[in-house]
Amino acid sequence: MLKAEIKVLLKQGVLDPQGQAAEKSLSALGYQNINQVRIGKYLEVTLNEKDRTAAEAQVREMCTRLLTNAVIEDYTFELVEV
Amino acid sequence: MLKAEIKVLLKQGVLDPQGQAAEKSLSALGYQNINQVRIGKYLEVTLNEKDRTAAEAQVREMCTRLLTNAVIEDYTFELVEV
Repeated sequence: MLKAEIKVLLKQGVLDPQGQAAEKSLSALGYQNINQVRIGKYLEVTLNEKDRTAAEAQVREMCTRLLTNAVIEDYTFELVEV
Repeated sequence: MLKAEIKVLLKQGVLDPQGQAAEKSLSALGYQNINQVRIGKYLEVTLNEKDRTAAEAQVREMCTRLLTNAVIEDYTFELVEV
């Protein structure tokens, strides 16, 4: 089986209020060295599939069709054996 | 600067309704080889810090104090130079 570890973040330039809130909260807690916080989604999709090339194509398709919003989000993923 | 890439998932055993919904939707879209979907958070925290050991300790502390909920969530992170 292959597990896709998918990281999804808002595109650069899209307002990230959740990240900004975390940034302010960390400053308020006394962390003075925070440069930026960005918050997105993390997905693990485990596939009954052995072929990496097929799995890669399928993950891209699933991200486009359902898992991410291409208008405002970017994603990257890695496949690991499980 | 160092960037912490933090992956947060619900602990094993904690109900993940968002993951289950995505699993069902992928099946409904015709993907028959989905074994499991888990959905969590992904955070990128960029620190004005050069020392990896100090940064690592700080990220752990920030996760415990603010960024994650230790009762129901597990996290892992990597530090990358930016």
